[in-house]
Amino acid sequence: MKNIVGMIEKGTVEAGDLANHLNEKIKIHGSIYKIRKMSGFAFILLRTKRNVVQCIYSNEFSLFELEELTEESCVIATAQVIPEERSKAGFELRLLEMEILSKPDQQSPIVINNKRVDTSLENLLNFRPVTLRNEKERAIFLLQEGITLGIREFLKKENFTEIHSPKIVHAGAEGGANIFRFDYFGKEAYLAQSPQFYKQMMAGVYERVFEIAPVFRAEKHDTSRHLNEYTSVDFEMGYIKNFEDIMEMETAMLRHVVEVLESDYEEERRILNVKLPYIKEIPSIKFMEAKELISAKFNRPILDFDDFEPEEEKLLSQIIKEETGSDFVFVTHYPGRKRPFYAMDSIENVEETESFDLLFKGLEITTGGQRIHNYEQQLSKMRKREMNTELFESYLMMHKYGMPPHGGLGLGLERFTSRLLDQDNVRLSSLFPRDLNRVTP
Amino acid sequence: MKNIVGMIEKGTVEAGDLANHLNEKIKIHGSIYKIRKMSGFAFILLRTKRNVVQCIYSNEFSLFELEELTEESCVIATAQVIPEERSKAGFELRLLEMEILSKPDQQSPIVINNKRVDTSLENLLNFRPVTLRNEKERAIFLLQEGITLGIREFLKKENFTEIHSPKIVHAGAEGGANIFRFDYFGKEAYLAQSPQFYKQMMAGVYERVFEIAPVFRAEKHDTSRHLNEYTSVDFEMGYIKNFEDIMEMETAMLRHVVEVLESDYEEERRILNVKLPYIKEIPSIKFMEAKELISAKFNRPILDFDDFEPEEEKLLSQIIKEETGSDFVFVTHYPGRKRPFYAMDSIENVEETESFDLLFKGLEITTGGQRIHNYEQQLSKMRKREMNTELFESYLMMHKYGMPPHGGLGLGLERFTSRLLDQDNVRLSSLFPRDLNRVTP
Repeated sequence: MKNIVGMIEKGTVEAGDLANHLNEKIKIHGSIYKIRKMSGFAFILLRTKRNVVQCIYSNEFSLFELEELTEESCVIATAQVIPEERSKAGFELRLLEMEILSKPDQQSPIVINNKRVDTSLENLLNFRPVTLRNEKERAIFLLQEGITLGIREFLKKENFTEIHSPKIVHAGAEGGANIFRFDYFGKEAYLAQSPQFYKQMMAGVYERVFEIAPVFRAEKHDTSRHLNEYTSVDFEMGYIKNFEDIMEMETAMLRHVVEVLESDYEEERRILNVKLPYIKEIPSIKFMEAKELISAKFNRPILDFDDFEPEEEKLLSQIIKEETGSDFVFVTHYPGRKRPFYAMDSIENVEETESFDLLFKGLEITTGGQRIHNYEQQLSKMRKREMNTELFESYLMMHKYGMPPHGGLGLGLERFTSRLLDQDNVRLSSLFPRDLNRVTP
Repeated sequence: MKNIVGMIEKGTVEAGDLANHLNEKIKIHGSIYKIRKMSGFAFILLRTKRNVVQCIYSNEFSLFELEELTEESCVIATAQVIPEERSKAGFELRLLEMEILSKPDQQSPIVINNKRVDTSLENLLNFRPVTLRNEKERAIFLLQEGITLGIREFLKKENFTEIHSPKIVHAGAEGGANIFRFDYFGKEAYLAQSPQFYKQMMAGVYERVFEIAPVFRAEKHDTSRHLNEYTSVDFEMGYIKNFEDIMEMETAMLRHVVEVLESDYEEERRILNVKLPYIKEIPSIKFMEAKELISAKFNRPILDFDDFEPEEEKLLSQIIKEETGSDFVFVTHYPGRKRPFYAMDSIENVEETESFDLLFKGLEITTGGQRIHNYEQQLSKMRKREMNTELFESYLMMHKYGMPPHGGLGLGLERFTSRLLDQDNVRLSSLFPRDLNRVTP
């Protein structure tokens, strides 16, 4: 028997900490990202946890042969940190010795160590385990982590409790045929389209809850903005006055996210050339007003009175950007016909709902609204829609035994990331995207 | 058009902030948890986000009728905060006015506002949307949130990057028949048993990664320690010397979790009567030594040389507790036959693996180990097991194109919570558990 004491050995220096080791001989580990031979010396780029670090090889001081190194080998380098004014980092890293921990069996057929991976989307995704090692690809998902860090930090401060709701469910929250079904020990079960029912139940428990977790949509859309599995940021809050409380909360949350990316993700913003949106206030417009505005401005007939066409979302964002400078716009009071059965109808106009979407640079990234909290009201709306209320017995339990006025939203993490980076395909903001034709890698 | 400025209105006082409002007239909102009529006055317990707050109703100062109130109504109370030395809180809350926001349709058939919900496990879970409102039930999942907060805080500090890996997969990581399958647009797909493949791939990208997300096991075990969906805390780290680096990291992580629960969850620990484990060091014992120790100590024949029987896990924990005082014990060097194909074999004894489990109070809560990083070595092990390597083409890509020595672990959040609370069933630490017979609520 021996004892594990919980000691984390730091045998090597972190890339971000090199400047504190000027004139020292240090050890640093990482993957050989790129070998660039010059005349008489070589630049060796070392890929570490977050940074790619430039090292210098030269016969003058390096005690190993350059030929021993191959790209994507994993190494522990011994190096001298020499102050150097001309270097952006303020120092140069002279390689002295090199311990090789592992070598690749082959070189990747896709070149991953240029500024960007220059290949088709198909290849980029097929070779994900290696293409993600590219500096630009890595930066996307570090920035995405920054988004969730900002969200968590904000929601924690606002006293939201994080929950883990089941993804195997017995009834779909969003209705329709867009649901994956499977055999669960002889019974039919489904993959959750959203944590909707559970976050509402939990708003009855903790008042404010959130979850960041996968959701599943069996949508047969093969577009640049659909994923069949995505990461949904959901929150739900009780004791709201109306659904604008939720929009206020989201606006403050997004503002905080931008602040976190501003302060803690300079390197990734530089690599990705991101211009962060400035969120002073977010314009809000009623659905029908928006429809008419787009129609008038672009001389388009209104064909669908229940929802936007994707092109209309882009045009609306364009108008709002021109008129107010905002990359975001809330659209409110969607017609009830296209909203789920739990949406609260407006008192002024029962054809409309107390709901909203948030568009970001032409794309819907959030759907939210106030929910029905009264039992009879919820039952009555379900009956009007000829739903089988027995199937929703456990959901309706919360209404029956008392719920505060409440509402919430769901934000698509990949969509938000993708628009932030002005990508032309949401798949680029998913580590391992799932679509109609893709379940690998 | 109007503007949403991101302003979060605080019309009411938070329960935890009441002591800063002595002698003030304040508003506070929540659910009426319990009405306790005394002679001439009444105690009204108000359930807020985290705390249950005791208020006092009396004809002397309350400007509404007690009969207007029902349990599980949601209200905004106007109250006077009166300093009171005899009260534990240091004040008493005198109800002046009461605005009722919503009323339940019916009273719950299960009594939820006693110290604990006194009913069968079956009922407790069937009525989850209301039974979770019980103070003790709420405390379980607040404490569970504390565990994940501690884990995240620790892993962030240790430079782990959080990832979101897909739950829809084309091949199982853990092998065997314990996998849910379903039709994915005409192809067969599966629900991820673990993020194993993806976290390994991402260790090749960021070196250190983690994920806290649902995993799915189609196990036909109807026991007190199995869930068919659970929350897995996974991390994976590159550039390890050996698998003990992972055990050291886990020990330090658990110690940090205990510190967070110690400092920030006093109220929940009190409600749940939790005695936190003291983690100075965690004993580590080899699998076969443990087997022999249990056999010798309890005069039991060794029947299974590949794995523990559940009873043996309990007995081992008992021995370790007696001999060292530790609630935790690492068991290392499991036989290869019962470990997955990616487990690194030991050099000293190729029948054994560089792997470990962590037992906590008699239950396995973690499995981990070093993985094979060399391409040929991995191929060869898979061929020996007569696996179809083509099915794992994208997984093997990382080995082919270079990986650091690496390893990691998975920790079952519900199991950890459950043992921490000395529960006799892991279902009690899942908000909405999924088992052989349960997909509702």
